[in-house]
Amino acid sequence: MGEINVAMIGQGFMGRTHSNAWSQLPRFFKPPVSAAMHTVFGRDAAGVQAFAKTWGWRHASTDWKAAVADPAIDLVDVVTPNNMHAEVSLAALKAGKHVACEKPIARTIEEARLMVAAAREAKGKTFIWYNYRRCPAVATAYKLVQSGAIGTVRHVRAFYLQDWADETIPLIWRFQKEGSGAGSHGDLNAHIIDMVRFVTGEEITEIAGAIAETFIKERKLVTGPTAGGIAAGVGGADKTGPVTVDDAVLFLARTSGGGVASFEAARQATGNQNRNGFEINGSKGALKFDFERMNELQFYDATRPRAVQGWTTIMCTHGGDHPYAENWWPDAHVLGYEHGFTNQAYDILRVLGGQEPVVPIPDFEDAYQTQRVLEAAIISAVERRPVSVSEVR
Amino acid sequence: MGEINVAMIGQGFMGRTHSNAWSQLPRFFKPPVSAAMHTVFGRDAAGVQAFAKTWGWRHASTDWKAAVADPAIDLVDVVTPNNMHAEVSLAALKAGKHVACEKPIARTIEEARLMVAAAREAKGKTFIWYNYRRCPAVATAYKLVQSGAIGTVRHVRAFYLQDWADETIPLIWRFQKEGSGAGSHGDLNAHIIDMVRFVTGEEITEIAGAIAETFIKERKLVTGPTAGGIAAGVGGADKTGPVTVDDAVLFLARTSGGGVASFEAARQATGNQNRNGFEINGSKGALKFDFERMNELQFYDATRPRAVQGWTTIMCTHGGDHPYAENWWPDAHVLGYEHGFTNQAYDILRVLGGQEPVVPIPDFEDAYQTQRVLEAAIISAVERRPVSVSEVR
Amino acid sequence: MGEINVAMIGQGFMGRTHSNAWSQLPRFFKPPVSAAMHTVFGRDAAGVQAFAKTWGWRHASTDWKAAVADPAIDLVDVVTPNNMHAEVSLAALKAGKHVACEKPIARTIEEARLMVAAAREAKGKTFIWYNYRRCPAVATAYKLVQSGAIGTVRHVRAFYLQDWADETIPLIWRFQKEGSGAGSHGDLNAHIIDMVRFVTGEEITEIAGAIAETFIKERKLVTGPTAGGIAAGVGGADKTGPVTVDDAVLFLARTSGGGVASFEAARQATGNQNRNGFEINGSKGALKFDFERMNELQFYDATRPRAVQGWTTIMCTHGGDHPYAENWWPDAHVLGYEHGFTNQAYDILRVLGGQEPVVPIPDFEDAYQTQRVLEAAIISAVERRPVSVSEVR
Amino acid sequence: MGEINVAMIGQGFMGRTHSNAWSQLPRFFKPPVSAAMHTVFGRDAAGVQAFAKTWGWRHASTDWKAAVADPAIDLVDVVTPNNMHAEVSLAALKAGKHVACEKPIARTIEEARLMVAAAREAKGKTFIWYNYRRCPAVATAYKLVQSGAIGTVRHVRAFYLQDWADETIPLIWRFQKEGSGAGSHGDLNAHIIDMVRFVTGEEITEIAGAIAETFIKERKLVTGPTAGGIAAGVGGADKTGPVTVDDAVLFLARTSGGGVASFEAARQATGNQNRNGFEINGSKGALKFDFERMNELQFYDATRPRAVQGWTTIMCTHGGDHPYAENWWPDAHVLGYEHGFTNQAYDILRVLGGQEPVVPIPDFEDAYQTQRVLEAAIISAVERRPVSVSEVR
Repeated sequence: MGEINVAMIGQGFMGRTHSNAWSQLPRFFKPPVSAAMHTVFGRDAAGVQAFAKTWGWRHASTDWKAAVADPAIDLVDVVTPNNMHAEVSLAALKAGKHVACEKPIARTIEEARLMVAAAREAKGKTFIWYNYRRCPAVATAYKLVQSGAIGTVRHVRAFYLQDWADETIPLIWRFQKEGSGAGSHGDLNAHIIDMVRFVTGEEITEIAGAIAETFIKERKLVTGPTAGGIAAGVGGADKTGPVTVDDAVLFLARTSGGGVASFEAARQATGNQNRNGFEINGSKGALKFDFERMNELQFYDATRPRAVQGWTTIMCTHGGDHPYAENWWPDAHVLGYEHGFTNQAYDILRVLGGQEPVVPIPDFEDAYQTQRVLEAAIISAVERRPVSVSEVR
Repeated sequence: MGEINVAMIGQGFMGRTHSNAWSQLPRFFKPPVSAAMHTVFGRDAAGVQAFAKTWGWRHASTDWKAAVADPAIDLVDVVTPNNMHAEVSLAALKAGKHVACEKPIARTIEEARLMVAAAREAKGKTFIWYNYRRCPAVATAYKLVQSGAIGTVRHVRAFYLQDWADETIPLIWRFQKEGSGAGSHGDLNAHIIDMVRFVTGEEITEIAGAIAETFIKERKLVTGPTAGGIAAGVGGADKTGPVTVDDAVLFLARTSGGGVASFEAARQATGNQNRNGFEINGSKGALKFDFERMNELQFYDATRPRAVQGWTTIMCTHGGDHPYAENWWPDAHVLGYEHGFTNQAYDILRVLGGQEPVVPIPDFEDAYQTQRVLEAAIISAVERRPVSVSEVR
Repeated sequence: MGEINVAMIGQGFMGRTHSNAWSQLPRFFKPPVSAAMHTVFGRDAAGVQAFAKTWGWRHASTDWKAAVADPAIDLVDVVTPNNMHAEVSLAALKAGKHVACEKPIARTIEEARLMVAAAREAKGKTFIWYNYRRCPAVATAYKLVQSGAIGTVRHVRAFYLQDWADETIPLIWRFQKEGSGAGSHGDLNAHIIDMVRFVTGEEITEIAGAIAETFIKERKLVTGPTAGGIAAGVGGADKTGPVTVDDAVLFLARTSGGGVASFEAARQATGNQNRNGFEINGSKGALKFDFERMNELQFYDATRPRAVQGWTTIMCTHGGDHPYAENWWPDAHVLGYEHGFTNQAYDILRVLGGQEPVVPIPDFEDAYQTQRVLEAAIISAVERRPVSVSEVR
Repeated sequence: MGEINVAMIGQGFMGRTHSNAWSQLPRFFKPPVSAAMHTVFGRDAAGVQAFAKTWGWRHASTDWKAAVADPAIDLVDVVTPNNMHAEVSLAALKAGKHVACEKPIARTIEEARLMVAAAREAKGKTFIWYNYRRCPAVATAYKLVQSGAIGTVRHVRAFYLQDWADETIPLIWRFQKEGSGAGSHGDLNAHIIDMVRFVTGEEITEIAGAIAETFIKERKLVTGPTAGGIAAGVGGADKTGPVTVDDAVLFLARTSGGGVASFEAARQATGNQNRNGFEINGSKGALKFDFERMNELQFYDATRPRAVQGWTTIMCTHGGDHPYAENWWPDAHVLGYEHGFTNQAYDILRVLGGQEPVVPIPDFEDAYQTQRVLEAAIISAVERRPVSVSEVR
């Protein structure tokens, strides 16, 4: 069996989830090739060494370009803030590496386009970490739609609602366009656009209307060190600075199969800590998912005898019947947030080992379609008009 | 079409639900014979006249014996406190009337036995108002079990949990054995014993063990007038008297089909206002019901493909597929508490008109079986031993 | 106590719910004036006489103009199809009557404007039957928002999803613009616009974008008699005709308090029989309601200690604490669909008797605001642009 | 910081969960002493070596006595089948080691007594892996009860329902008394007895009645190799052998604070894959937990204003407010089954490092109390009488 040497560029929150995935993978899965946790990059030498020790990376580096160029490396895992996705990915592809990049693919559509062009020319394979595809319940939804279980998709409601961003939160980089590119839109809508495209197997063709709103327009400047090395307003406790990204973005859309859809991302939707989900109504059945109960999929089968029709709560933990379940625990010994990442790491190794992934992984090309939808929605909000996704290239 | 003249004996809370049932019936149903609200009996002349006017009873009476003996009357509806069930029913049967009596059939097993014996000799038909059988969801459960949908019943969990009876409630008649016969046991366990017998189609054969508990042993004496004309402690605000009935009764049982069961009635189960329901697990499927969501039945069909197995929430409001639903409103225009009574009034008229009821109604004989289980459970609690229901005759 | 003579114009589905409300009212409520079920109007003499007998109307009439003009009548209750709302209401107001009209106020904004103008000049009071306001859970939501329990409203998600209209349903009048004015929009969005305006106490100021869609564009012609006397395609079993109304309308909006909102009405949202509800997220708390569990309100109180924060399911059946509950049954002896109408009939009598209603009832002026939002949404969908509600007059 | 060398005896299903716990621990927690995965024992040399490699144990051994006696070892982690718990634990204690043993403490009450006696004399500390205590939701329940949030406990309903054991499952060791000691009782009731004792802080004092039932009395003999090296019936496909343990055990009990309780363990409760939970009703509030939604705790606070009382679903994932949450992921990025074990491994290291555990861990003495309750329940079922737990010593 071959071995893939991984270099992970970045070590923040996503660095933890990816390190966990790479280290847990061989304990629960038998991939066709194995992955070695070769090198982790971080800006701060002491910090990255401690991180490497905690998570079992063999080498720690403060020079990402060297790490990416290292001939020993096979796969570059990009977990930086969004503003470095393009630069690191392009360098890695140029160096002939496979690239697995965090979502969204990039900060802007232009960057995404460059990445797609590079991927087309490169010999390495590309992957984007849209981790929620690999929740067993979401993967089960995909399989049910593929099997025709809900018929033609007519209605989609997708939402990713959080509530962490009240007035007490200072002006961290997530509220500054320079660092993040976007607010809730790139952070949250990106996930649900990908998830809807994945589960329905359809493209979003038009944005019929959109709203972008920033409820809290000024925030206190950060008084301590800033996160991720990205410039954010830093100052005394009584100074404030402007928020330059959205708190919430809602949009209406049409899908390639003739359906209609609504999307909503929010950071002040009080009562929802991580409600990432969808409702899909088809001509023969329907599906509902809410990540806060991530092990459950709701399925309505309108072909059953009417007397017993209803929403069925499927606990997606049965090995052999629900994707990935056989690698973990017995029935209803439920999974958590990080398992989706481990499942994806496994599928990346399947692909690199010449096998089909359990369910499709988005590559740069695929993630670019998601990015176009994000871009079209913002144009619609700003220019106050319907926007065809085909306008965005 | 014939017309049945009804005399209702009693006018308390149950008097309201029955009056509502008789008056709503012709507006939503087309029974084979109609019911006329002929006479209502109450102790207090002014009170019963006002009641008759509000609810549309043609006559008000303070002489129940005359009302029961009146040749114009066809059906006597008994809604008195439990301690009058036997006396009124026996008189009515003797007078050749049909009798529909509130549950439980009687205060004691001896009374119940007399009533059964009288019913056997009488020409009138008998009915007990176990109203929850006629919630569409419970009736749907019955039909599913009958159809074999859950296979052999192995486990039953039945519960009727309330929480109204905290320390602030004074010593009303419900806490005094003289008036009520029993506490939560006769009030609440009676319902769930009947419901389990109905839904499973099985008898309870043995009580394996039981607990009867009174958590609040003394209560303040009632300072105002007492309810139902029944003697309860009445006194100054600072005096208390002993509670002489149970607050909670739990018991374990075996069923005639080889299953095991638990029952629980409670009046201080904080957080449960009217949680009357069951869980039944069979060899091929399972059912759950909770009256607080009375329009819904939970069904687990273990014969479905494993990938889509789960608990299905059936909204039992579809006309033609769920019992009684076609007489009310469109899909998911949900029903409430009182509809079960109207459904039963309809079924009583079906029986009196020579038709089958939509689902079986318990007669005195049938309700006596429920009473035997209640009695066996109390013996088990008091004598601290298993008790066969066949001991109780 | 005075008595109000009611003439009800119409006798379809809504005629049943209103008749039920008027007849149940005196049994459960003590209004300051009573209502007499004086006259019901229907086109068909035999039909209306049978209807009057079933429901207890004293007189049956086939001449609505005479009924409305009858000096004995105090209140005209309009339950005709939408295309007669204006004509009947105007005649009634002109005759000096009070008018209670079914929703939506009218088929077109022009009609609604005429009705508002007439109401301003008239001595009679006006009411619109937006019945869902008077579900105890919705009224509880209103009171919580009024009390400041959720702070500033930031997000609203409103939805009214049904699934009855699949391909098997023929071309009844509900699918023809001539009879209904609109499809799901007037039928369903009307309710949720009113409910959001009521609960939040805010106006909808702008439609940011909208989609109107007809999924099933041709339907089989009706072969039997048509409903409501309204022309619909009638023909052989193999002929079809065009659907001229929407199946679904979605729109995004802004509210007067600075919040953002989405609305969706659907008739083919498989799995949802009558999911009429909302989610409202404020700066201090949040609320959720779904009519399919109409007795429950979900409340998130973000001012509670964080360790015990969460969504609280309030069973809105506690007399004295939840509006209307004390008039019905004990705790968690749940209410059904029709109770909202009875509650409204009570509140109409409170107003006519000089009291405040338990919660506000929309008059023509208020319902006109809802109509403007409906109109603005349709303009937005058709003209594919944002529309300020102030444009619509 | 000191380092604790761990020897794990056993490598089955529980060996995986414990290995996962020890290896994940340093990545998410900062314990006062660290743990080294020193040696794992298994019967099969090749198997244990592969296991050691997969999970990162430094040494693999086929001689558990040597492993336990090894002076390098500080802590012995016992994950064998139940019939070896006593022997291994006694040897380890004698060798001066700390011992962390899987539940239930032993196969019989006699063995448990020996283990307690040995623990009293030993210098090593003892721990039992009742892992569900350390689900954040269960630990939150404990803290709420401790704080007085539910007042005096009156009602407990505890259940651990599974449905894996239908007729298709052959006669594996779990169905043979020799290997397992008991069926569902030791496997499942052990957990919920511990959980109830933990959350309520009370002891179970009396078993009022019990039922033990084996629904499937004969099973096909196993044709392949048997699990865990334990003798089970092995034979041709058409031969069967007797099941010698219970499928289900139900019992009623009284608690030291005056409450009443029911317990139920089941392996054929169709529709429940791993429903391990409780309902506890106190005089001031109530709690509900169901492991199938392990991140959620239901709390009813009866001291809140009545208008907003209801069941609150607490998502127990908020760092700082819910035990263990700050070591894992952000709000509502939910945890899974195995996290409880990692949390316990952390608490073991806290204790060995001289700190208080986050919530109490049962030692042998504490687990012996649970064992007494198990034993008393079985006596009650067999002898058909109430049994005081004080009888069992």
